[in-house]
Amino acid sequence: MFEKKQKRRQSEPECSTMLTEGINAVCELLKSGQAVDKLFAAENAHGRIGEIIALAKKNGVPITICDRRKLDSMSQTGNHQGVIAQAAAQNYASLDELFERAEQKGEQPLFVICDGLEDPHNLGAIIRSAEAAGAHGIIIPKRRAVGLTGVVARASAGALSHMPVHKATNLPSVIDEIKERGVWVYGAEADGTVDLYKADFAGATALVIGSEGNGISRLVREKCDFIVSIPMRGKVNSLNASNAAAILLYETVRRRTQG
Amino acid sequence: MFEKKQKRRQSEPECSTMLTEGINAVCELLKSGQAVDKLFAAENAHGRIGEIIALAKKNGVPITICDRRKLDSMSQTGNHQGVIAQAAAQNYASLDELFERAEQKGEQPLFVICDGLEDPHNLGAIIRSAEAAGAHGIIIPKRRAVGLTGVVARASAGALSHMPVHKATNLPSVIDEIKERGVWVYGAEADGTVDLYKADFAGATALVIGSEGNGISRLVREKCDFIVSIPMRGKVNSLNASNAAAILLYETVRRRTQG
Repeated sequence: MFEKKQKRRQSEPECSTMLTEGINAVCELLKSGQAVDKLFAAENAHGRIGEIIALAKKNGVPITICDRRKLDSMSQTGNHQGVIAQAAAQNYASLDELFERAEQKGEQPLFVICDGLEDPHNLGAIIRSAEAAGAHGIIIPKRRAVGLTGVVARASAGALSHMPVHKATNLPSVIDEIKERGVWVYGAEADGTVDLYKADFAGATALVIGSEGNGISRLVREKCDFIVSIPMRGKVNSLNASNAAAILLYETVRRRTQG
Repeated sequence: MFEKKQKRRQSEPECSTMLTEGINAVCELLKSGQAVDKLFAAENAHGRIGEIIALAKKNGVPITICDRRKLDSMSQTGNHQGVIAQAAAQNYASLDELFERAEQKGEQPLFVICDGLEDPHNLGAIIRSAEAAGAHGIIIPKRRAVGLTGVVARASAGALSHMPVHKATNLPSVIDEIKERGVWVYGAEADGTVDLYKADFAGATALVIGSEGNGISRLVREKCDFIVSIPMRGKVNSLNASNAAAILLYETVRRRTQG
């Protein structure tokens, strides 16, 4: 179902300190109320960077005004737009926190399980679309997959600050656990047996997105309750992983909001 | 509606010769029947590269077996997977060709207008999702936007070989022309007045996707018949441009196939 070639795996390590870069991402981070250790802003900044500095001051975040070249040398994304925030890396959430998020909103759980994504831009875009679609959490595996790096945070356009992410030591066992807790697990593959538009996403739902290289792994696929297929009406037989996730997420929104 | 920060603009020029890289993309290019000038493949290749070499031989494409380091130095994407095809740059299509594509299939036209995208990965992913959704063509502006580069071809996972792209010297005039030819033009913005799930995509449809930085430009927005909004149920107020396009495209598929 998903893209087979585009591996832009970053060597960027997950670290205990994370940089968040760019105007929207830093703004969302400050608004989220998470602890920010330091804000670096370009001198002679104006417009929205001025607003960000004011917001940081209000939150008591230490601010360093510096030369753009210093920001360039710190930047992990190559596009900091004049502002970089340094914070402790986002803590991973427990499974309970994901369920609590749904309960607080009085909604049926909606989770996205990313089975071995390698491209941080894809993971970031999925977190962004999941947050926009009102999902309650993301589940990623501990091994052989990109974790929550600065590039992911940046590509999520700030959504990561609002979205709990659970890191599973053993993804199949976590799927067993959420199934026991009443969640239906839908994998997405080209040869699925359930038509996207016939799937019932109204109940507690987890959407499984496979990796760019290999799709959904065998062990995870065996745990899925249903394999959904997105109709392929042209000659290509797969979609970019984040585009596939967005289509599934918004079909869920449609089913949940349009009755 | 769309992403405000992630600008990975490539300096890579559009050129009269285009490289297509990676197993799927080269395979789709060869299958599409387009003229390929030369195939470069890594020595000691096996598996799918062997198939690609056989396909190139069958098509009479000159093959150069070379060292992986030569491929590394040619590569524009940094991930050639052992195979690079060199071909004349894809010709842009006329508007008529886009309409003919729909007519040949006996379908109402479905076009995607990309208004000033800067990120070749986004343009490539949109072409890929558009092809998968059965769209009949893409329209991009001539100026201030990424054109059809090797990175776009690669990110499209081969879909570019199957999808006509029209390059508009003046995007608002082209929109006027397609409207005169019966196409309804739907822009997508966060503050749209038409609910995504209420829009009627059954007739001849063009979907307008705004740029990562600035959304839809004022002149283009004024030409739209409708502004559709994708529901934003979380805290972020925009989606990645290719994810937004995928959601719109597949809502069109749903409306056209589910009656």
